[in-house]
Amino acid sequence: MRVGILGGGQLGWMTILEGKKLGFEFLVLEENTRAPACKVADGCFTKERLEEFFRLCDVITYEFEHVDEEVLNFVSPKLLPSIDVLKIKRSKVQEKLFLERLGYPVPRFTHCTLKDLKNKLEEFGLPAVVKSESFGYDGKGLYRVYTLEDIQSIIQNHKPDEVFLVEELIDFDFEISIVGARDKEGNILTYTPTYNYNHSGILLYNYTLEEDVKQAEEIFMQLAEDLRYVGILAIEFFYAKGKVLINEIAPRVHNTGHYTLDGSYTSQFENHVRAICGLPLGSTKLKAPSGMVNLLGLSLEDIPIHELLSIEGTKLYYYGKEKRPRRKMGHVNVVSEDYQSLKEKVQKVLQTIYTGIIFGYGRLQGYAQPT
Amino acid sequence: MRVGILGGGQLGWMTILEGKKLGFEFLVLEENTRAPACKVADGCFTKERLEEFFRLCDVITYEFEHVDEEVLNFVSPKLLPSIDVLKIKRSKVQEKLFLERLGYPVPRFTHCTLKDLKNKLEEFGLPAVVKSESFGYDGKGLYRVYTLEDIQSIIQNHKPDEVFLVEELIDFDFEISIVGARDKEGNILTYTPTYNYNHSGILLYNYTLEEDVKQAEEIFMQLAEDLRYVGILAIEFFYAKGKVLINEIAPRVHNTGHYTLDGSYTSQFENHVRAICGLPLGSTKLKAPSGMVNLLGLSLEDIPIHELLSIEGTKLYYYGKEKRPRRKMGHVNVVSEDYQSLKEKVQKVLQTIYTGIIFGYGRLQGYAQPT
Repeated sequence: MRVGILGGGQLGWMTILEGKKLGFEFLVLEENTRAPACKVADGCFTKERLEEFFRLCDVITYEFEHVDEEVLNFVSPKLLPSIDVLKIKRSKVQEKLFLERLGYPVPRFTHCTLKDLKNKLEEFGLPAVVKSESFGYDGKGLYRVYTLEDIQSIIQNHKPDEVFLVEELIDFDFEISIVGARDKEGNILTYTPTYNYNHSGILLYNYTLEEDVKQAEEIFMQLAEDLRYVGILAIEFFYAKGKVLINEIAPRVHNTGHYTLDGSYTSQFENHVRAICGLPLGSTKLKAPSGMVNLLGLSLEDIPIHELLSIEGTKLYYYGKEKRPRRKMGHVNVVSEDYQSLKEKVQKVLQTIYTGIIFGYGRLQGYAQPT
Repeated sequence: MRVGILGGGQLGWMTILEGKKLGFEFLVLEENTRAPACKVADGCFTKERLEEFFRLCDVITYEFEHVDEEVLNFVSPKLLPSIDVLKIKRSKVQEKLFLERLGYPVPRFTHCTLKDLKNKLEEFGLPAVVKSESFGYDGKGLYRVYTLEDIQSIIQNHKPDEVFLVEELIDFDFEISIVGARDKEGNILTYTPTYNYNHSGILLYNYTLEEDVKQAEEIFMQLAEDLRYVGILAIEFFYAKGKVLINEIAPRVHNTGHYTLDGSYTSQFENHVRAICGLPLGSTKLKAPSGMVNLLGLSLEDIPIHELLSIEGTKLYYYGKEKRPRRKMGHVNVVSEDYQSLKEKVQKVLQTIYTGIIFGYGRLQGYAQPT
């Protein structure tokens, strides 16, 4: 079996490291041949060799959402998850309209072009969250608007006819996510939900929740089925006053599922490969309470690696990318025997990496037990 | 950090798949560029480029013991574990003499050339096990001699001046092994001991023991220290009447430690890389009861992969080697919630792979609880 991956980032890198264990080959379509996934692939192709790439692959998947439109259409006959899902996801407005139409709980929202933003916000009410329709991940292209003066910074950064999603600012207790998989036969399995802590819109750490979040799991099962989805899907939720609202969906392996590499019977990466290759899903059971801390904007030389690896149950994943501020350069997985010691270890990893270096993260946040 | 590996087999392949997570580079010295480790290495070198290989590597290790003598001497300044350990191990006679000299428990033994074998056996007593000094792994070059007529097959296969180790045939209850690591600072950690089941001298399956085997663990700690060892070391023991005898040592990552990839906090492969690179060892704690079944002489097409991967907690490692009878082509790791269900799953994996195909393996062997 030969699997093609659109994009050469760390999600592709981990998919290949996991998928090669099954004896499969992996080809990557990526312009930067020094990207992480290219270093472990059986072949790296640029766009000029798209036809050859397409012909050689039995199945093609993607590891980031902003794939070139032309490429996407060309490979769509072999693409999983299907192009339809990705097209919904590529517009933050379409994503929300789709979810609303099918009756899923989402924050109140509307949309408009930048030139109509002021009027729209007056009508919609403040505070609000304003998101660029097409661009934006890890907190980019996202603005919190408390007063109408706040829209000046949006006007400076964007064009007048750019489309924006406007959402109510949710006063949520915490954010959780569910990662899961649906195979070609329609079987669906979800991983243990995680508590996620974001710093300026970018995931800093997460860890598995001790209790089920039934409402979120039911939403996952229903949505994976509604989409006739094949592969790994992630859903981020706001948890507020005992209820969940969908924040966004990610039709791919996801940063909040990295813990599954060490914490779960089968990793999200292996299950993605299994699903798109027509193999049965592996168990998503938890082996041990698990967490993950992102290495943001730090290279291997910036972190006290001896100290970090001396914390029991830590495992480093370093992607080998060029250093940039806030960039996801790697992550540290943590497993432990129980939830109390897990949180202590996550706290210790955070302190070891970040104390005095980049930004304070404050105390490790607890979470209200979902009921 | 750039790590060199002598040999391109599956042990190198798994070392690289695990070690790349740490952001390290791996170069392989191997004549067959289609060997498993070459497919995941950052570079594959043949012997003609030995000097370049040596110069580029920060540290060099090996994944099989029968390394070319010239190569071994050339790379020895950067070699870990050290050349001294490997030299002892490369002669089955030297290995036993070394262990006996330091007072470790070994079966009664002697040695001789093939032309003296008959006389030596008359003096030593039968039954005995006769092993070629320099060649022999996975049951090759190993003979059980019950009567003096049995030595005819040895005479047919070997030269008169070849040296043989002669050992008493131990009536052991079962075989166990301990895999562990010693780092550069002298810290030693052992993994959970395993019960091993061999078929015609080759490991068929193993699984973690529920109880400690204190005597074996103490021997491991002492031997790793006596050798001033750095890296992963494995010791195979016969367990007979409540006591252990060393069968053999392996100064490298080991087939009986493959379960650590999914069962332990840190795999044997990552800990080998950590140790030789001067990093602290990762925890060797068990996440869940674990086992392993070897795929012997079977390619991916020969096994019912859907059925196999549907068994909860199974994970396939397929090395991509050319198929040969009895050859280790891959393995299946198994994790479970408790020891009873683990053994049931290992049994199920064995049945799924081998029933009616290659050889019967009989019922899954129980084991006498070590005390």
